[in-house]
Amino acid sequence: MLPWLLALTISALTGSTVGHGGGSERNCSISPPYIPSTAVNSTLQLQELRKKMLPLKISAYIIPGTDAHLSEYIAPRDARMAFMTGFKGSSGTAVVTPTKAALWTDSRYWVQAEREMDCNWELQKDVSVGSIVQWLIAEVPKGGQISFDPFLFSLKKHEEFEIALESSNITFKSVSNQLVDEVWPNRPPIPPDQLIRLPDRVIQRTWQEKVQDIRRQMAESLYEPTALLLSALDETAWLFNMRGKDIPYNPFFYSYTLLTMDEIWLFLHEHRLTDELKVYLNSSCSGPLCVQLRSYDSVLEQVQAYVAKAQVKVWIGADYTNYALFEIIKPKDKIMTTSYSPVLTTKAVKDETEQRILREAHVRDAVAVVQLLMWLEKTVPGGKETELSAAHYINMCRQKQKDNRGPSFETISASGPNAALAHYSPTNGTDRKLTVNEMYLVDSGGQYLDGTTDITRTVHWGTPTAMQKEAYTRVLMGNIEISRTVFPSGTRGVNMEMLGRRALWEVGLNYGHGTGHGVGNYFGVHEWPVGFQSNNIPFTEGMFTSIEPGYYKENDFGIRIEDIAVTVPVKTRLGNRFLTFETVSLVPYDRKLIDTALLSPQQLQWLNTYYETIRRVLGPELDRQNLSEEKSWVLRSTEPITNAAASITFCALPVLTVCALIQSLL
Amino acid sequence: MLPWLLALTISALTGSTVGHGGGSERNCSISPPYIPSTAVNSTLQLQELRKKMLPLKISAYIIPGTDAHLSEYIAPRDARMAFMTGFKGSSGTAVVTPTKAALWTDSRYWVQAEREMDCNWELQKDVSVGSIVQWLIAEVPKGGQISFDPFLFSLKKHEEFEIALESSNITFKSVSNQLVDEVWPNRPPIPPDQLIRLPDRVIQRTWQEKVQDIRRQMAESLYEPTALLLSALDETAWLFNMRGKDIPYNPFFYSYTLLTMDEIWLFLHEHRLTDELKVYLNSSCSGPLCVQLRSYDSVLEQVQAYVAKAQVKVWIGADYTNYALFEIIKPKDKIMTTSYSPVLTTKAVKDETEQRILREAHVRDAVAVVQLLMWLEKTVPGGKETELSAAHYINMCRQKQKDNRGPSFETISASGPNAALAHYSPTNGTDRKLTVNEMYLVDSGGQYLDGTTDITRTVHWGTPTAMQKEAYTRVLMGNIEISRTVFPSGTRGVNMEMLGRRALWEVGLNYGHGTGHGVGNYFGVHEWPVGFQSNNIPFTEGMFTSIEPGYYKENDFGIRIEDIAVTVPVKTRLGNRFLTFETVSLVPYDRKLIDTALLSPQQLQWLNTYYETIRRVLGPELDRQNLSEEKSWVLRSTEPITNAAASITFCALPVLTVCALIQSLL
Repeated sequence: MLPWLLALTISALTGSTVGHGGGSERNCSISPPYIPSTAVNSTLQLQELRKKMLPLKISAYIIPGTDAHLSEYIAPRDARMAFMTGFKGSSGTAVVTPTKAALWTDSRYWVQAEREMDCNWELQKDVSVGSIVQWLIAEVPKGGQISFDPFLFSLKKHEEFEIALESSNITFKSVSNQLVDEVWPNRPPIPPDQLIRLPDRVIQRTWQEKVQDIRRQMAESLYEPTALLLSALDETAWLFNMRGKDIPYNPFFYSYTLLTMDEIWLFLHEHRLTDELKVYLNSSCSGPLCVQLRSYDSVLEQVQAYVAKAQVKVWIGADYTNYALFEIIKPKDKIMTTSYSPVLTTKAVKDETEQRILREAHVRDAVAVVQLLMWLEKTVPGGKETELSAAHYINMCRQKQKDNRGPSFETISASGPNAALAHYSPTNGTDRKLTVNEMYLVDSGGQYLDGTTDITRTVHWGTPTAMQKEAYTRVLMGNIEISRTVFPSGTRGVNMEMLGRRALWEVGLNYGHGTGHGVGNYFGVHEWPVGFQSNNIPFTEGMFTSIEPGYYKENDFGIRIEDIAVTVPVKTRLGNRFLTFETVSLVPYDRKLIDTALLSPQQLQWLNTYYETIRRVLGPELDRQNLSEEKSWVLRSTEPITNAAASITFCALPVLTVCALIQSLL
Repeated sequence: MLPWLLALTISALTGSTVGHGGGSERNCSISPPYIPSTAVNSTLQLQELRKKMLPLKISAYIIPGTDAHLSEYIAPRDARMAFMTGFKGSSGTAVVTPTKAALWTDSRYWVQAEREMDCNWELQKDVSVGSIVQWLIAEVPKGGQISFDPFLFSLKKHEEFEIALESSNITFKSVSNQLVDEVWPNRPPIPPDQLIRLPDRVIQRTWQEKVQDIRRQMAESLYEPTALLLSALDETAWLFNMRGKDIPYNPFFYSYTLLTMDEIWLFLHEHRLTDELKVYLNSSCSGPLCVQLRSYDSVLEQVQAYVAKAQVKVWIGADYTNYALFEIIKPKDKIMTTSYSPVLTTKAVKDETEQRILREAHVRDAVAVVQLLMWLEKTVPGGKETELSAAHYINMCRQKQKDNRGPSFETISASGPNAALAHYSPTNGTDRKLTVNEMYLVDSGGQYLDGTTDITRTVHWGTPTAMQKEAYTRVLMGNIEISRTVFPSGTRGVNMEMLGRRALWEVGLNYGHGTGHGVGNYFGVHEWPVGFQSNNIPFTEGMFTSIEPGYYKENDFGIRIEDIAVTVPVKTRLGNRFLTFETVSLVPYDRKLIDTALLSPQQLQWLNTYYETIRRVLGPELDRQNLSEEKSWVLRSTEPITNAAASITFCALPVLTVCALIQSLL
């Protein structure tokens, strides 16, 4: 699945019915405006919110689409932006002034926003902080005040706004009242589900070992922090080897942790812990390896009490800790920040067990994806399958696999022009029939007790056009070039990701999203801080990332080829400490779409080696599951690319004189 | 010449006599310590500085190696670090405490520092702010104060230190007394030389046009700045089409500019302006296109007076404006910062005239480099030439070229192991004889009235080893891969520079410096903000940069291949707004060192096309200068690489089956 942060610039915006009145999208430029039935009437909540803003002298109130843990996916009770605007996309920022209301969301969601919002809201398309601030400066009078709920701003995002507003004569200030919650009558409650601990078979390090490792890193820090505050949901889940289901597709639970050298404070909803879990956490004692349970809602107050002590210093991750926690840690010399906490950077490197089981999850996951692709190949010509039925089928296939815990995100099942919307997921309103005349893109993943998966394949069941074949091959070349590259340990993904684009660039094509993100062991499908974006950490051995170049042709088709790969050491002839990627997704590409003449000999070799690996690793699993038809399908799909194709390859290259010579000899 | 910022991690440190007593480097671990005659006795100046620190309660005083304009090269009167330490390298930071003194400099200069410093100074080798701060935290007592001259810290560098020291309970504060200057008895005066204006033939935009363009950009800014403060020396020089010679190798003059919508204040040493220049600058009027001359030393006071007015806002470049100017602009809402001023970003894109004359300068410069290479080929076997005589010869060749204004930096002329020190320049003490048994690296450049040049060639006059050939070829592959790559306008150099390393990485090699920097029209040889480093701006059409991968084998040899290239639009089959590089340096590579079997067909084609360009463009210039021997040498050196080599190329690639087939047919 696409990395979310950079998925901002795709201009492909098709598959929508243009509604000048009567269509599926609103039209606010006619009188009276046309509002589709899918839109939410936001008048009342806007009225109520403005009533709250007035006595506080707030000229603009910012409502981000995240939660207090700066989560990418959020629980229904945190869908404040959706409550206010009607827009239910997973990424956006809303701003309300006494007279205006605007929503910023990226191109993935523009159509959806036009369908779900009424004309109280204007849609803004450049989601950069600079664009929001530009709008704010134009709308807010000099001397005015912009406010926000400090729980919904990371320290880093807050700083970006603060810097951008610095020269503006406008005040930028948090308000502790959670204004949206105050006007939200039926806000969903905390989920009641009990939390779980991971079984021993998927664990190498106990939580006690992890705590000791993190404490060691705290002790080594030059700045001598006395406590580490964990606020991202996967930080606490990782530390205690626990999971929950508070957030759709993400096995997280509401929590914070304050870890000191001799105490552990775990903030959560205590009633959700079984007695067994309380024992597991040593929660009845008070030594350095006893977990003291504290109420989730007391975190501010208790951190404040901790900070009031002499000689303390709290370490936080600046990129994702909320500003509410940050602003109570005073004076300044009681705080220490790094982009990511040592929990996140430690978690980024998988231990042996994690690596093994994450690979194993990918083998079982490949079975499900192969089943989908084989089934589609057979049934699509019959003309009855749709994007939705395919999405349903892949979920079903995954459910049959051992330790499956559902999908890791909403399946992107997109045919023809719908696939040009990089993040499209089918709904009853948009569902498109699958045919042999269109390309089809399926981006899906599973949660397994041992690992999270994420894979995209693009296929064509009929005869692709020359353009489709060329674009697909160039996307594949990008995937291969990253996968096969050799690089020094410590290289940043962002400095290599152009390899995923270069074959497209050569002919003037490109894609508007990021090239890859981390994944983990039964965690969020976008696991920070690994990947190819500028704020990801450098690659070292044992990190798992997606590699997912793409190409999107507006109104026509979309291509993405996504695999998960792990960084592994590679023996080079003359140096040490070099790495390469090993692909752990094990599903063949669509041969029909590969123009082998475009591939370099090295790319062709990589492809054949990958296909050998699929046969070697996936074959036995298919046998174990008695899936002989699938086995034949895989063997057929992974036949080595022949030498004949390879010889054409040479001659497709620009130095043609030798080729002419060779061909005359042949 | 290597980009300075990233040239930090090279561990090649050879060519030095290891001195345990009696060598060319100090040995502080024996008693009494051994101090070579090249070292400076720093006892007195340290004593004096500490006397000044005491009443001000300064626990540590930082002395950067730069000037008030954050220049890379500095005038002798700004060599405060050298005065204090004895170390004369162009990059470093010194810190003095009441009992200790330490110098941080990067690997280029470690040997030099050991030769020039006495044992009062410890040498620190990790030049990151983190490393300096770590040392400071260990040395400065809690509650202590670290101070510095605010003229020698950029706002950005200040912020880095401030953030790193934030959690340390140590105060970080500027002192307005310039402590080093106070204890420096014979500090050199301001150079007396008169300034010049550039002749019309090298100018497209008059200074008035430039002023209007910059004012237009100020007017367009959202933050409504009322003034732009220019503090980098090349900003003022560019704006007024003027040059000076205050700084070795750099045609700059001490200056600041405050540009408002209706006034221009030029701060300089007025007596250095001729009457003609005063007329040129319209300095006797006071309209919006009249330059008001102000004394260089009054800048603080006058900016302060300007800032005291109501409704003003001053725009500054955060990466290089000194902290002394920043800290007087108060309150905060009177300041607006961007990394680079609009002058620097405008200057980065050359106009048509600048592009044309910069290319022309490179043609003449190539004549000089060809003369050097040809002469060395003839004379080195005679056994009389040395690194110094070669450096002298290239300077002489350049002097003969039209509009030459001397070298653009001290020539790096390095043979055998000396070349493994990436930034080595020969001195009488280190001068090495050139022989047919060693590789030779020459990195040099010229200042011309129409352009600044910078080129590196590495050659071997005898029989290179297989390792030398392979390393050279892989460095060349890196140079070619960057040069030939096609990329969307707006791509950052840092996201492409791995192409310069990839062929080396494949076999486990790498280099420890940056991959390229901007150059300009009769300016500094490292022209910000263009290049391949993370703080460079994205590439758009018309930017000139060096491309200079390398490889350094400790105690053995060094390779660097550096060309200047310009970003040009390229027609792609399917897209628009794509760029590629066009190499404007025109000197052949050493054929003997190229293993054509390693090159891809595309690389080979690029090389042959480049050689055709050299013949087409340099040939007529050699004819014009009646240099027939040089012409023959160039023709010989740019013979097309034959197809035979190309066919070998195919078969060196990993997919061997086809090659075997082809070879059997051949």
